Amino acid sequence: MQIREKCGLCGVTGCDNAVALVAEGLHAQQHRGQEAAGIMIRTNDNLYVHKGPGLVSEVFTSIPVSWSGAGVKTAIGHVRYGTVGESGVENAQPIMVDIAGLKIGLAHNGTISNALRIRNDLQHDGSILQTNSDTEIILHLIAKAIVKCGYDFRKALEKALFPLEGAFSLLFLTHDGIIALRDPMGFRPLCYGKLSGGGYVIASESIAFSVCGAEYVREVKAGEMLFFPHDGGEPESSTFAESGKLAQCIFEHVYFSRPGSRVFGDSVYKVRLAMGAKLAEEAPVDADVVMPIPDSGTFAALGFAREQGLPLDMGFTRNHYVGRTFINPASADRAAMVMRKLQPIPEAIKNKRLCIVEDSIVRGTTSLARIRALREAGAAEIHMRVSCPPHRHGCYFGIDFPESSVLIATDRSVSEVRDLLKLDSLAYLSEGGMLSCITAHKPEDYCAACFNGRYPVNPVTIGT
Amino acid sequence: MQIREKCGLCGVTGCDNAVALVAEGLHAQQHRGQEAAGIMIRTNDNLYVHKGPGLVSEVFTSIPVSWSGAGVKTAIGHVRYGTVGESGVENAQPIMVDIAGLKIGLAHNGTISNALRIRNDLQHDGSILQTNSDTEIILHLIAKAIVKCGYDFRKALEKALFPLEGAFSLLFLTHDGIIALRDPMGFRPLCYGKLSGGGYVIASESIAFSVCGAEYVREVKAGEMLFFPHDGGEPESSTFAESGKLAQCIFEHVYFSRPGSRVFGDSVYKVRLAMGAKLAEEAPVDADVVMPIPDSGTFAALGFAREQGLPLDMGFTRNHYVGRTFINPASADRAAMVMRKLQPIPEAIKNKRLCIVEDSIVRGTTSLARIRALREAGAAEIHMRVSCPPHRHGCYFGIDFPESSVLIATDRSVSEVRDLLKLDSLAYLSEGGMLSCITAHKPEDYCAACFNGRYPVNPVTIGT
Amino acid sequence: MQIREKCGLCGVTGCDNAVALVAEGLHAQQHRGQEAAGIMIRTNDNLYVHKGPGLVSEVFTSIPVSWSGAGVKTAIGHVRYGTVGESGVENAQPIMVDIAGLKIGLAHNGTISNALRIRNDLQHDGSILQTNSDTEIILHLIAKAIVKCGYDFRKALEKALFPLEGAFSLLFLTHDGIIALRDPMGFRPLCYGKLSGGGYVIASESIAFSVCGAEYVREVKAGEMLFFPHDGGEPESSTFAESGKLAQCIFEHVYFSRPGSRVFGDSVYKVRLAMGAKLAEEAPVDADVVMPIPDSGTFAALGFAREQGLPLDMGFTRNHYVGRTFINPASADRAAMVMRKLQPIPEAIKNKRLCIVEDSIVRGTTSLARIRALREAGAAEIHMRVSCPPHRHGCYFGIDFPESSVLIATDRSVSEVRDLLKLDSLAYLSEGGMLSCITAHKPEDYCAACFNGRYPVNPVTIGT
Amino acid sequence: MQIREKCGLCGVTGCDNAVALVAEGLHAQQHRGQEAAGIMIRTNDNLYVHKGPGLVSEVFTSIPVSWSGAGVKTAIGHVRYGTVGESGVENAQPIMVDIAGLKIGLAHNGTISNALRIRNDLQHDGSILQTNSDTEIILHLIAKAIVKCGYDFRKALEKALFPLEGAFSLLFLTHDGIIALRDPMGFRPLCYGKLSGGGYVIASESIAFSVCGAEYVREVKAGEMLFFPHDGGEPESSTFAESGKLAQCIFEHVYFSRPGSRVFGDSVYKVRLAMGAKLAEEAPVDADVVMPIPDSGTFAALGFAREQGLPLDMGFTRNHYVGRTFINPASADRAAMVMRKLQPIPEAIKNKRLCIVEDSIVRGTTSLARIRALREAGAAEIHMRVSCPPHRHGCYFGIDFPESSVLIATDRSVSEVRDLLKLDSLAYLSEGGMLSCITAHKPEDYCAACFNGRYPVNPVTIGT
Repeated sequence: MQIREKCGLCGVTGCDNAVALVAEGLHAQQHRGQEAAGIMIRTNDNLYVHKGPGLVSEVFTSIPVSWSGAGVKTAIGHVRYGTVGESGVENAQPIMVDIAGLKIGLAHNGTISNALRIRNDLQHDGSILQTNSDTEIILHLIAKAIVKCGYDFRKALEKALFPLEGAFSLLFLTHDGIIALRDPMGFRPLCYGKLSGGGYVIASESIAFSVCGAEYVREVKAGEMLFFPHDGGEPESSTFAESGKLAQCIFEHVYFSRPGSRVFGDSVYKVRLAMGAKLAEEAPVDADVVMPIPDSGTFAALGFAREQGLPLDMGFTRNHYVGRTFINPASADRAAMVMRKLQPIPEAIKNKRLCIVEDSIVRGTTSLARIRALREAGAAEIHMRVSCPPHRHGCYFGIDFPESSVLIATDRSVSEVRDLLKLDSLAYLSEGGMLSCITAHKPEDYCAACFNGRYPVNPVTIGT
Repeated sequence: MQIREKCGLCGVTGCDNAVALVAEGLHAQQHRGQEAAGIMIRTNDNLYVHKGPGLVSEVFTSIPVSWSGAGVKTAIGHVRYGTVGESGVENAQPIMVDIAGLKIGLAHNGTISNALRIRNDLQHDGSILQTNSDTEIILHLIAKAIVKCGYDFRKALEKALFPLEGAFSLLFLTHDGIIALRDPMGFRPLCYGKLSGGGYVIASESIAFSVCGAEYVREVKAGEMLFFPHDGGEPESSTFAESGKLAQCIFEHVYFSRPGSRVFGDSVYKVRLAMGAKLAEEAPVDADVVMPIPDSGTFAALGFAREQGLPLDMGFTRNHYVGRTFINPASADRAAMVMRKLQPIPEAIKNKRLCIVEDSIVRGTTSLARIRALREAGAAEIHMRVSCPPHRHGCYFGIDFPESSVLIATDRSVSEVRDLLKLDSLAYLSEGGMLSCITAHKPEDYCAACFNGRYPVNPVTIGT
Repeated sequence: MQIREKCGLCGVTGCDNAVALVAEGLHAQQHRGQEAAGIMIRTNDNLYVHKGPGLVSEVFTSIPVSWSGAGVKTAIGHVRYGTVGESGVENAQPIMVDIAGLKIGLAHNGTISNALRIRNDLQHDGSILQTNSDTEIILHLIAKAIVKCGYDFRKALEKALFPLEGAFSLLFLTHDGIIALRDPMGFRPLCYGKLSGGGYVIASESIAFSVCGAEYVREVKAGEMLFFPHDGGEPESSTFAESGKLAQCIFEHVYFSRPGSRVFGDSVYKVRLAMGAKLAEEAPVDADVVMPIPDSGTFAALGFAREQGLPLDMGFTRNHYVGRTFINPASADRAAMVMRKLQPIPEAIKNKRLCIVEDSIVRGTTSLARIRALREAGAAEIHMRVSCPPHRHGCYFGIDFPESSVLIATDRSVSEVRDLLKLDSLAYLSEGGMLSCITAHKPEDYCAACFNGRYPVNPVTIGT
Repeated sequence: MQIREKCGLCGVTGCDNAVALVAEGLHAQQHRGQEAAGIMIRTNDNLYVHKGPGLVSEVFTSIPVSWSGAGVKTAIGHVRYGTVGESGVENAQPIMVDIAGLKIGLAHNGTISNALRIRNDLQHDGSILQTNSDTEIILHLIAKAIVKCGYDFRKALEKALFPLEGAFSLLFLTHDGIIALRDPMGFRPLCYGKLSGGGYVIASESIAFSVCGAEYVREVKAGEMLFFPHDGGEPESSTFAESGKLAQCIFEHVYFSRPGSRVFGDSVYKVRLAMGAKLAEEAPVDADVVMPIPDSGTFAALGFAREQGLPLDMGFTRNHYVGRTFINPASADRAAMVMRKLQPIPEAIKNKRLCIVEDSIVRGTTSLARIRALREAGAAEIHMRVSCPPHRHGCYFGIDFPESSVLIATDRSVSEVRDLLKLDSLAYLSEGGMLSCITAHKPEDYCAACFNGRYPVNPVTIGT
């Protein structure tokens, strides 16, 4: 799978180790964005930001020493996937601005789907936009609202957020503390936990809490705004927008989020085991072993193997040192590229009837290369089970998902895909089966548009 | 496990893609050395070397473009673990020297155990040694032998290698081709495969063959010297030293080599499954699930679970973005460091009786931190099974192994270690059980000195 | 002298070599700013900018190859002195913005003296300012004006520039071409020349013309706006503001500009020779030799020596490899620092009665160190002549000039300064004498506020 | 002039600031080598070296902090011109080796002219040479001598140096102190001074003494070996070789050394003034002004102007920011490159009859470009005077001098060169005139082989 989440967030209040904890929390969420990272802190006098291109561990080697001392008890951070080139640096977050003397910082996960229209309105009103980022738009709306609302930041925020459509989980840092909120449809996750020594941690995924030593409290609700005072005091909740309808991203459970996280109130680990089991129930297989494509297919494979009573085995070993492509591969064959990351273990494969469990198939090129490698290693039969329905539609709500035209399943039946991939059998989990694995919400509270094309926002307003 | 192999080798003859294949082969063996990498090529006119600190993917981003063209059909490469600092660069291999007009390159895996004595002899004979490396000593012995043997390189090599004791798998590159050899006791692995389009690949581990599209042929024998002509012609075998006794490193199977490799003639995958099964036979456990410490304990855990009929589960998720330590951890507690790499999945652990399978315990500090993390996540019981005997002795033959004094098991019984680690039960695989999992050699053909202290070389000559 | 000019500008229209010529023109003006450089180009489709910290030669090593081809006939560039740290990059110019679909670039030399007040107004109107730069303010004023003026850029410019006070020589790049203008008082220089092959060069100093092969035409007049069409057509002149009074910076002639330049219509070389001669007339000296402090005092010394008929000699050699300070100097003594750059030639100094000619004295610390070095080298007498009056006031119009409080002459008579510097005699050029060396303008068309404190702009509006 | 010296040396004994002083001393001699720099220190326990590519100020930004403390009282350093690429780093000096337990460091200025023959001898004796450097050969000879001489380093040195021919000024650092010596013909300079607070400074040029606060004592004599004890005690002199003949490099006075230095016992400043005066005497000119090509022609021009009673003027200004070439020049014309460094001042040139004074003409391309620039600036006549004879032969003794075939004067008469350069007149200083400007030695004590082809060493043994 090569689909990328666009961002991850983390914030800490009321803790002497705020900078270190935010760094740990971002590092635990590094899978949500590898191209830029940033941390912004509050001191008694001011706000400061440090950000740059690269992984958390690269960006924070050069963190100012003074930041890690006591006195910095409140901070927010961001990891980002972005396009290559200079923009990587320019678009790193948190973004810090001075709005008529009020300093604020913003970290954003999601995509504003009507950004283009708002951008045009702002420009024709004389605003200068420095970047192509939809996050900058939010700041301009706030600047205009603050002038009208007389510096009551939270009140201005309500006004400013009103015209926005699409996905936005946000963390604001001001001198007073952190404001955390999710858009009214709740596309992207955001939750918070309590530190044992006092103070709070807010993060996209709860895996950040375990590395920080915090206890999971609950999700930020869709349309809810939570203010966390900088001194670590209890959060104050308010509602900035009502939502008749939730549209939480089911793909967070299928692929993005880490199995150790609780997302939208459910354990990702449990949901994936359940998806594997449901898949075995819907499409059992006659095979010798069940093999995950590591690491993303591991838990669905475990659930599948248990449900069907088949032995689990590992047929690929993962090379943990995969970096940027370094030299032209031995042949133009894409297999060489794929093999760099996962290498088959011939003794585990030869003469075996395999059931490969994968979390999803996007373009199909990677799967094709792996299936070929298994054939070359002597597999007797190759059956594939995918723990979600076929992907046939793009995403406009925060995931870097390819266009319909390149998705292997877009205009193909499952049997056509099976033939293309040269599989002995292929089955996908049904939409109903997938959503039945959720326990904390109703099925209709999830967005599955990438599978079924039913976008929760009027597609007319969706821009670039 | 934090023990490091000292090096990995790869060479290719008779193939237009020689540089790319060596790079792929080294990359597949990156786990054998991450601190420096190098490739040396033969052109029609000359030999050239390119090396530097870092991973293969980092060092070879800047490989000269001209190298990847046709015309370069023969090359050798090396990955190295080395001490930090400038020495990293200076000690990168292959080393290229000009011996009275004869250019040769050398890549070395292993440790010469009587290096100090030979070094003194050479210096008192007027030689200037540039580094502390034992590899340089080999080159000086060759230089002296060549003067006496009249430029017959292979003959000179026989003379030069005679005084050496300890571990040395070597690849030499000359204008004529590649010479591959293993020391008379065969401490470290080296094998070769045949490319489908002609030419050969030589590597420490056979995993390099699958990424290169080569077929495994056989091990280089202990005391054997194989000459691979640069044009890809058949290797010529000769014996440079007789060996009454083999001392192959059993720890290559326990931990170092990759499961997709064949090492000393055996499949690492199969040996590890067998070790897990043997361990279950010797020390069964009353538990709900078997959990590996990923990734090194995975296959022993699979074998263990199957043998005992217990379900396998994954209780830790691995963070693939672990880099150098970037900021002081949230607390001085080592747990924070350990948790950065592996994060517990509370839902998989809570109220479960766990059987943790690990490949080895060295100092015990990492294990202690993980056991504590499992307790905090709510484990009901924690049993540990280790797929080798207790480590109680240092290694002088090519592994960066800590001294006896810091090994947790050195002066402790198994029950003392169990109490120290706060485990409900602990068992190690017996030496006999471990060696019974080997099929291609007799048990006495293996060195198990790190477990039993019986060094195959006279310890009097072992220096630093 | 350690005073720094804040910026230098260069633009080219209608020439296939536009990028190379702008780079050459900036390089020839590198003395006007060493901390950041940038070039912005116009292609048929779009505008692009490339900028970064460092010297022109450093920033343009990585210029996109495609830029230097034909098709890019129009470009502007900027060199900048800025404060250290991140701001260096952020504040590099030209700044490119998209104002409601209209892309424009701006390069600025000078300082807006009422920037703080305008900034506050803008912020309270809902604008977000990204930097502390006064240049950004200009862009915001233009954005607001464009909305009102319906996209007539030159008309909008007139409105936008109206509220600005202080020094601003500007180059704008649009799809149509380059607009060059000077503030109504003409604080900073800007002139243009004609390329022999067609097209124009605009630059702060005419030295840029000789490296580009262009012929000097004339100054841009104060309050004049010149539009240079992108195709190299003739410039169109218009007046955007009337000015009753000029305030050209006399210090450009004394120190900043290069002797090969024509500035404000006068040859810097001739003005400096004249200043030296006038100084000899006002304050002759009884000495063996006249010695300049290289390189800035060289031409005044030549004029002085000729006028008084004394021999010229060089008593210091300059070390051309002076970089950033690299190690603590041998002693805390500032002399060590100063000596790194200029080293005395004992044989030229010993037992001589010296007349040292310097362009100015600021803090006095550097002069003190040099005078001490001359004493140690055995000078019999040291007389100093300075080719401008004593500096006693700060500058708010584009020069990085220290505050009054640290200027050695602020509260001291010339004889007190002489004693402090341990000189045998000291004389400064009179204000009238200095201004008498100008030929292209009247003396009252120059600002000499740093000498006499008579600021040409109401000091009440001068902010930070 | 584009000829490069190959190296510069500096050493300090008995001073708490040893590292800082050596850095200052090297920096003052940076003109002798810009491509690599290194410092080696003696602590109570050991010797350490730090070196790298680049200027002194670049290499020593990263000097270990611990080095600058007290306890390090003795150090040597080296600046080097070398070929580009990796070799820059490998060949940086001082070179540190361990010869049978004895650590020594070596810094070398000069070229061993029979290096190739000695290299072959060493290799056929079984030595391994790591580099192409002639300096390494010296170390191998020492290693062999030490084995025979039983660790008396100074005695071994005498034996080791015996076979060497050509130019070698050397600084050795051992635990005991510094040994400084010059080859028996004294090709390259080396002198020492006394620090006011105790201890000594040794350097290629005495300009290093003034920046260190040391008093010039005398030259190291040709064939003399001076031992400076590490505690700063008095140097002990011995003679390691008798020399019937000196061959000091006259080009050090003409061009290389800095005017503030005393070299071979003479003041460079005085010698250059004298050369200019002699040139005026031999070849007076009918011109309006005398103009140096800065900076190297400055002092000869001063001497010329005074002798002939003509006014001196500066017609070029130097751009101090010239770095590596950054972009293709505006035209293929070499003039563009030359103009980047020196820019003509039209007002100083127009309608003037100029006498240009240059230190030497090598290929003639640079001169041609400058003469053309002067013509374009309107010079009425251009006369050129060169302060040495025509260069017609290569150098094998430490200067990077082009081969005869590319020297403009090799097969041309002076009038042919004049015509080629389009000059109104051209004259060179005669060999006798040049040597008559020396006062501390006899004319025959100098090597002028680059002018007259009379090499002081048997050319048969001169290798590459």
